[in-house]
Amino acid sequence: MDTFAQTPEPPYYAVIFTSIKEANAQDYSETADKMLSLAAKIDGFLGVESLRNENGFGITVSYWRDSTAISNWKNQTDHLIAQDRGKQEWYRKFFLRVAKVERHKEFQKPV
Amino acid sequence: MDTFAQTPEPPYYAVIFTSIKEANAQDYSETADKMLSLAAKIDGFLGVESLRNENGFGITVSYWRDSTAISNWKNQTDHLIAQDRGKQEWYRKFFLRVAKVERHKEFQKPV
Repeated sequence: MDTFAQTPEPPYYAVIFTSIKEANAQDYSETADKMLSLAAKIDGFLGVESLRNENGFGITVSYWRDSTAISNWKNQTDHLIAQDRGKQEWYRKFFLRVAKVERHKEFQKPV
Repeated sequence: MDTFAQTPEPPYYAVIFTSIKEANAQDYSETADKMLSLAAKIDGFLGVESLRNENGFGITVSYWRDSTAISNWKNQTDHLIAQDRGKQEWYRKFFLRVAKVERHKEFQKPV
Protein backbone atom coordinates (compact mmCIF):
# COMPACT_ATOMS: atom_id res chain seq x y z
CA MET A 1 0.00 0.00 0.00
CA ASP A 2 1.04 3.42 -0.82
CA THR A 3 -0.86 5.29 1.78
CA PHE A 4 -0.28 6.78 5.17
CA ALA A 5 -2.26 5.50 8.11
CA GLN A 6 -4.38 8.20 9.69
CA THR A 7 -3.99 7.71 13.40
CA PRO A 8 -5.63 9.57 16.30
CA GLU A 9 -3.74 11.41 19.02
CA PRO A 10 -1.37 9.16 21.03
CA PRO A 11 -1.27 6.96 22.93
CA TYR A 12 -2.07 4.08 20.57
CA TYR A 13 -0.19 0.96 19.52
CA ALA A 14 2.02 0.03 16.56
CA VAL A 15 2.79 -3.56 15.56
CA ILE A 16 6.00 -3.58 13.54
CA PHE A 17 6.32 -6.74 11.46
CA THR A 18 9.53 -7.17 9.46
CA SER A 19 9.97 -10.31 7.40
CA ILE A 20 11.73 -12.17 4.64
CA LYS A 21 9.24 -13.90 2.39
CA GLU A 22 10.12 -17.05 0.48
CA ALA A 23 10.36 -16.53 -3.29
CA ASN A 24 7.79 -19.26 -3.86
CA ALA A 25 4.99 -18.34 -1.46
CA GLN A 26 1.79 -19.90 -2.76
CA ASP A 27 -1.50 -18.10 -1.97
CA TYR A 28 0.48 -15.41 -0.20
CA SER A 29 -0.90 -12.26 -1.85
CA GLU A 30 -4.51 -13.47 -1.80
CA THR A 31 -4.16 -14.29 1.89
CA ALA A 32 -2.45 -10.97 2.65
CA ASP A 33 -5.33 -9.10 0.97
CA LYS A 34 -7.88 -11.16 2.86
CA MET A 35 -6.06 -10.60 6.17
CA LEU A 36 -6.04 -6.86 5.59
CA SER A 37 -9.80 -6.76 5.02
CA LEU A 38 -10.38 -8.93 8.10
CA ALA A 39 -8.04 -6.84 10.27
CA ALA A 40 -9.92 -3.71 9.22
CA LYS A 41 -13.07 -5.23 10.74
CA ILE A 42 -11.50 -5.57 14.20
CA ASP A 43 -12.71 -2.92 16.62
CA GLY A 44 -9.69 -0.73 17.34
CA PHE A 45 -7.88 -1.19 14.02
CA LEU A 46 -6.46 2.19 13.03
CA GLY A 47 -4.59 1.56 9.79
CA VAL A 48 -1.58 -0.08 8.16
CA GLU A 49 1.52 0.91 6.21
CA SER A 50 3.39 -1.74 4.27
CA LEU A 51 6.23 -2.20 1.78
CA ARG A 52 8.19 -5.16 0.40
CA ASN A 53 11.15 -5.13 -1.95
CA GLU A 54 12.24 -7.44 -4.76
CA ASN A 55 14.38 -9.51 -2.38
CA GLY A 56 11.36 -10.39 -0.25
CA PHE A 57 12.24 -8.09 2.64
CA GLY A 58 9.13 -6.39 3.99
CA ILE A 59 8.06 -3.95 6.68
CA THR A 60 4.41 -3.79 7.73
CA VAL A 61 3.33 -1.46 10.50
CA SER A 62 -0.24 -1.78 11.71
CA TYR A 63 -1.80 0.60 14.21
CA TRP A 64 -4.24 -0.27 16.97
CA ARG A 65 -6.20 1.56 19.65
CA ASP A 66 -5.02 -0.69 22.49
CA SER A 67 -3.57 -4.09 23.34
CA THR A 68 -7.03 -5.67 23.50
CA ALA A 69 -7.54 -4.87 19.82
CA ILE A 70 -4.14 -6.41 19.00
CA SER A 71 -5.02 -9.50 20.98
CA ASN A 72 -8.40 -9.83 19.25
CA TRP A 73 -6.69 -9.68 15.88
CA LYS A 74 -3.98 -12.13 16.93
CA ASN A 75 -6.65 -14.66 17.90
CA GLN A 76 -9.02 -14.15 14.96
CA THR A 77 -9.74 -17.62 13.49
CA ASP A 78 -8.68 -17.06 9.87
CA HIS A 79 -5.68 -15.11 11.06
CA LEU A 80 -4.56 -18.00 13.27
CA ILE A 81 -4.64 -20.29 10.21
CA ALA A 82 -2.69 -17.72 8.18
CA GLN A 83 -0.13 -17.37 10.98
CA ASP A 84 0.46 -21.13 10.83
CA ARG A 85 0.91 -21.08 7.06
CA GLY A 86 3.21 -18.10 7.45
CA LYS A 87 5.55 -20.10 9.65
CA GLN A 88 5.25 -23.32 7.65
CA GLU A 89 5.41 -21.88 4.16
CA TRP A 90 5.74 -18.17 3.55
CA TYR A 91 8.33 -16.64 5.85
CA ARG A 92 11.97 -17.51 6.12
CA LYS A 93 12.31 -15.18 9.05
CA PHE A 94 10.33 -12.49 10.78
CA PHE A 95 10.45 -10.12 13.71
CA LEU A 96 7.29 -8.85 15.38
CA ARG A 97 7.39 -5.91 17.77
CA VAL A 98 4.53 -4.45 19.79
CA ALA A 99 5.12 -0.82 20.68
CA LYS A 100 3.13 1.91 22.37
CA VAL A 101 3.19 5.16 20.39
CA GLU A 102 3.83 7.94 22.89
CA ARG A 103 4.00 10.89 20.51
CA HIS A 104 3.85 11.66 16.81
CA LYS A 105 4.08 14.54 14.41
CA GLU A 106 2.97 15.05 10.85
CA PHE A 107 4.55 17.25 8.23
CA GLN A 108 2.87 18.34 5.04
CA LYS A 109 4.68 20.60 2.61
CA PRO A 110 2.80 23.84 1.96
CA VAL A 111 1.59 23.99 -1.64
CA MET B 1 18.63 -1.79 3.51
CA ASP B 2 17.78 -5.39 3.34
CA THR B 3 18.62 -6.38 6.83
CA PHE B 4 16.89 -6.94 10.11
CA ALA B 5 17.84 -4.83 13.09
CA GLN B 6 19.17 -6.90 15.95
CA THR B 7 17.59 -5.47 19.06
CA PRO B 8 18.05 -6.39 22.72
CA GLU B 9 15.29 -7.53 25.04
CA PRO B 10 12.50 -4.93 25.47
CA PRO B 11 11.88 -2.31 26.56
CA TYR B 12 13.55 -0.14 23.92
CA TYR B 13 12.28 2.49 21.49
CA ALA B 14 11.24 2.50 17.84
CA VAL B 15 11.01 5.64 15.71
CA ILE B 16 8.67 4.96 12.80
CA PHE B 17 9.21 7.43 9.97
CA THR B 18 6.87 7.16 6.96
CA SER B 19 7.30 9.61 4.13
CA ILE B 20 6.63 10.57 0.53
CA LYS B 21 9.82 11.73 -1.11
CA GLU B 22 9.77 14.22 -3.99
CA ALA B 23 10.78 12.70 -7.33
CA ASN B 24 13.53 15.30 -7.72
CA ALA B 25 15.33 15.18 -4.37
CA GLN B 26 18.84 16.49 -4.88
CA ASP B 27 21.58 15.12 -2.59
CA TYR B 28 19.00 12.90 -0.94
CA SER B 29 20.71 9.50 -1.13
CA GLU B 30 24.13 10.85 -0.19
CA THR B 31 22.61 12.62 2.79
CA ALA B 32 20.60 9.55 3.79
CA ASP B 33 23.78 7.44 3.74
CA LYS B 34 25.64 10.05 5.77
CA MET B 35 22.81 10.31 8.31
CA LEU B 36 22.82 6.55 8.76
CA SER B 37 26.52 6.48 9.53
CA LEU B 38 26.15 9.43 11.93
CA ALA B 39 23.13 7.89 13.67
CA ALA B 40 25.09 4.69 14.19
CA LYS B 41 27.62 6.71 16.21
CA ILE B 42 25.02 7.89 18.71
CA ASP B 43 25.22 6.05 22.02
CA GLY B 44 22.04 3.97 22.27
CA PHE B 45 21.47 3.45 18.52
CA LEU B 46 20.30 -0.14 18.05
CA GLY B 47 19.66 -0.48 14.33
CA VAL B 48 17.44 0.50 11.43
CA GLU B 49 15.13 -1.12 8.88
CA SER B 50 14.15 0.83 5.79
CA LEU B 51 12.32 0.47 2.47
CA ARG B 52 11.07 2.86 -0.22
CA ASN B 53 9.07 2.05 -3.34
CA GLU B 54 9.08 3.50 -6.87
CA ASN B 55 6.38 6.00 -5.97
CA GLY B 56 8.56 7.55 -3.29
CA PHE B 57 6.64 6.08 -0.36
CA GLY B 58 9.04 4.96 2.37
CA ILE B 59 9.04 3.38 5.80
CA THR B 60 12.11 3.69 8.03
CA VAL B 61 12.10 2.24 11.52
CA SER B 62 15.07 3.04 13.72
CA TYR B 63 15.60 1.50 17.14
CA TRP B 64 16.99 3.19 20.22
CA ARG B 65 17.86 2.24 23.78
CA ASP B 66 15.90 5.11 25.35
CA SER B 67 14.41 8.54 24.70
CA THR B 68 17.69 10.27 25.59
CA ALA B 69 19.38 8.54 22.66
CA ILE B 70 16.52 9.64 20.35
CA SER B 71 16.82 13.19 21.61
CA ASN B 72 20.61 13.19 21.10
CA TRP B 73 20.12 12.06 17.52
CA LYS B 74 17.34 14.57 16.91
CA ASN B 75 19.64 17.40 18.01
CA GLN B 76 22.82 16.23 16.27
CA THR B 77 24.15 19.19 14.25
CA ASP B 78 24.34 17.64 10.78
CA HIS B 79 21.04 15.94 11.36
CA LEU B 80 19.38 19.26 12.20
CA ILE B 81 20.57 20.64 8.87
CA ALA B 82 19.30 17.54 7.07
CA GLN B 83 15.92 17.83 8.84
CA ASP B 84 15.60 21.38 7.50
CA ARG B 85 16.42 20.32 3.96
CA GLY B 86 13.99 17.43 4.34
CA LYS B 87 11.15 19.84 5.01
CA GLN B 88 12.27 22.42 2.44
CA GLU B 89 13.22 20.08 -0.38
CA TRP B 90 12.91 16.33 -0.04
CA TYR B 91 9.64 15.35 1.58
CA ARG B 92 6.16 16.11 0.35
CA LYS B 93 4.77 14.61 3.52
CA PHE B 94 5.94 12.59 6.47
CA PHE B 95 4.74 11.09 9.71
CA LEU B 96 7.09 10.46 12.61
CA ARG B 97 6.06 8.27 15.53
CA VAL B 98 8.01 7.56 18.70
CA ALA B 99 6.99 4.27 20.29
CA LYS B 100 8.17 2.19 23.22
CA VAL B 101 8.62 -1.47 22.28
CA GLU B 102 7.04 -3.50 25.07
CA ARG B 103 7.53 -7.00 23.65
CA HIS B 104 8.89 -8.72 20.58
CA LYS B 105 9.31 -12.15 19.10
CA GLU B 106 11.54 -13.54 16.39
CA PHE B 107 10.81 -16.43 14.07
CA GLN B 108 13.40 -18.26 12.03
CA LYS B 109 12.41 -21.18 9.84
CA PRO B 110 14.24 -24.37 10.78
CA VAL B 111 16.57 -25.44 7.98
